[in-house]
Amino acid sequence: LPIERGLMRSILINLAMSVVGFGGTILLIPVASKYVLRRNMFGYDINKRGSAAGKVKVPESLGLVSGIVFLVVAILFQHFIFSQENSISDSYPPENAWLTEYYAALASICFMIFLGFVDDVLDIPWRVKLFLPSIAALPLLMAYAGRTNIVIPKPLRPTLGFNELDLGWIYKLYMGLLAVFCTNSINILAGVNGLEVGQTVIISCAVLIHNVMQISRSEETRHAHAFSLYIMQPFVATSLGLLAFNWYPSSVFVGDTYTYFAGMALAVVGILGHFSETMLLFFLPQILNFLYSIPQLFKIVPCPRHRLPSFDPHSGLLIGSNDMNLVNLFLRWFGRCSEQQLCIRLLIFQVLCCGFCFGLRYLMAGWYK
Amino acid sequence: LPIERGLMRSILINLAMSVVGFGGTILLIPVASKYVLRRNMFGYDINKRGSAAGKVKVPESLGLVSGIVFLVVAILFQHFIFSQENSISDSYPPENAWLTEYYAALASICFMIFLGFVDDVLDIPWRVKLFLPSIAALPLLMAYAGRTNIVIPKPLRPTLGFNELDLGWIYKLYMGLLAVFCTNSINILAGVNGLEVGQTVIISCAVLIHNVMQISRSEETRHAHAFSLYIMQPFVATSLGLLAFNWYPSSVFVGDTYTYFAGMALAVVGILGHFSETMLLFFLPQILNFLYSIPQLFKIVPCPRHRLPSFDPHSGLLIGSNDMNLVNLFLRWFGRCSEQQLCIRLLIFQVLCCGFCFGLRYLMAGWYK
Ligand SMILES: [Mg+2]
Ligand SMILES: [Mg+2]
Repeated sequence: LPIERGLMRSILINLAMSVVGFGGTILLIPVASKYVLRRNMFGYDINKRGSAAGKVKVPESLGLVSGIVFLVVAILFQHFIFSQENSISDSYPPENAWLTEYYAALASICFMIFLGFVDDVLDIPWRVKLFLPSIAALPLLMAYAGRTNIVIPKPLRPTLGFNELDLGWIYKLYMGLLAVFCTNSINILAGVNGLEVGQTVIISCAVLIHNVMQISRSEETRHAHAFSLYIMQPFVATSLGLLAFNWYPSSVFVGDTYTYFAGMALAVVGILGHFSETMLLFFLPQILNFLYSIPQLFKIVPCPRHRLPSFDPHSGLLIGSNDMNLVNLFLRWFGRCSEQQLCIRLLIFQVLCCGFCFGLRYLMAGWYK
Repeated sequence: LPIERGLMRSILINLAMSVVGFGGTILLIPVASKYVLRRNMFGYDINKRGSAAGKVKVPESLGLVSGIVFLVVAILFQHFIFSQENSISDSYPPENAWLTEYYAALASICFMIFLGFVDDVLDIPWRVKLFLPSIAALPLLMAYAGRTNIVIPKPLRPTLGFNELDLGWIYKLYMGLLAVFCTNSINILAGVNGLEVGQTVIISCAVLIHNVMQISRSEETRHAHAFSLYIMQPFVATSLGLLAFNWYPSSVFVGDTYTYFAGMALAVVGILGHFSETMLLFFLPQILNFLYSIPQLFKIVPCPRHRLPSFDPHSGLLIGSNDMNLVNLFLRWFGRCSEQQLCIRLLIFQVLCCGFCFGLRYLMAGWYK
């Protein structure tokens, strides 16, 4: 399908601004690192305990920089969609709702980064922490003016006797839970240099591919996917800027500031782009990690503060512990390896899961929905 | 003029939610204080130096609690304006723009509280700090879809030959500068227990009175003033909750988190309520304090880190220093007094200035515009 000139222009401007955002992140992280260290916000790298690198104070919460740069880029970009999309606003119910949703989305993401940083600084207890995303998601839930009905999968239609189901407020509850799930599930698949940002970048790239495919495929959902693209491009750019410092050996840690930011950004585009089921499929490793972690998370099995592998300073390799998460499972299944190798293995798994999701969508197309 | 039932209902619901917000702030501040102290975010009360009270660690940045409670109340309240104001949306150009502006306003306030907290934690240098409000104001500036023209004062019209002047982007620049001024001017009229919150509450109450008067007086500007009311009520409520702890002798400090939050909230309602000139008149003490501080702010005269009076532990009274600000000027003019008396004197001055502003508006009405 041909794409409108205006849309193409907006996407390219967004891309250019994202590149600037990447540069800004790269420049600001070293500056912010100094300030963060000065205020004693640092961590020791537990996976290097016993080696010289384990004694270095690594500045914490640098997701802060990505978050702020992302917000500035996303806000300034509004100027370049406003005038153009105004003309097509009839196609989107109701008038101007897309702009309201854009600001509500930014308010939610901003609120989440803020609460994430507050958590990093004040160390909010586990039970409260779990619900921070549902507070931050409020602007999104309140502003959401889109459909609250779901399409019943074709195989179920004869049994149920209807094609669509309007969930009403239950749909909003689902949106809130999605935000809680996305943020917390990224937050617990962690503990290896580069893993938090790495998995997020891969999921985001999968989302970008999905958006680009949908934009060129269908008129109907085009603007929902363009919306997602406008948020995902600067998000990936500012995340990559952070990854440059967080990749093994990490010179900065990302903090809950980043994992919350990432989870909320993905939840927001999944909800407003109307592809939350696809998004959940991209989250397959996080879902598996969460399910496997349940016995420890709910204290059925004893749970230490950090469920990390142990580090052997002689060989420089990580050895899987019995803690129940994907990180240790990979070490137990595929053998001990260096931290960087472990991160790469886990990221390859993330890529495979995203590929599987595309395959599934391809196979199910037409049959399922 | 009669007020629509729906509008009255919205205002009362907003008031009720604000009362809940007041309670929430009162309950949460002691909890947050513990967390803040645990992370070594505290200050010693310099105005009590030499007495026992000067050695107590006072938790800092508790404006955080007011800010978060305010955001939650303001976001949830959106539910109660949406359906009702939708019906009158034709009167407001363009459709749904008010809701977009509501979220943009909340995004700006949220971004400002966030940056204020980051500043409290990381101690951002003076030169950067000054411009944080202009970054936080971006959502507001970008979303602003209202008029950018100013009405020429009547006495000038014959000379100029026109009644209105469209300022275009200069108007947006003015909005950005207003945000910078409001936040920083409250931030520098400080240093006495209860002063930051006290002056803010008085200005906000003046704004509330102005809104109520305008709502009952004119159909035309009614919804702009209702908008302002919806933000000011929860703002005053959560500020009063903070004042209960920050009043002399302060058991918590408010931090730049609060002064930034307060300045941005006031700037936002001044801009979106289209009464920024009146707002500036309410800021008369802050303007005087700023003008008087200029020689020190621009380092023409030497400027210490805190431009505070000195405390005499024997009499328990404050003695004015030669530093150029309103706090010391009051001590020099009206004689030494206790910290609480000083705060009350300064707040009385604030009340008088707001009263003067109302008087001026009354006298100038019809003649000036
Ligand atoms: Mg974490
Ligand atoms: Mg201050």
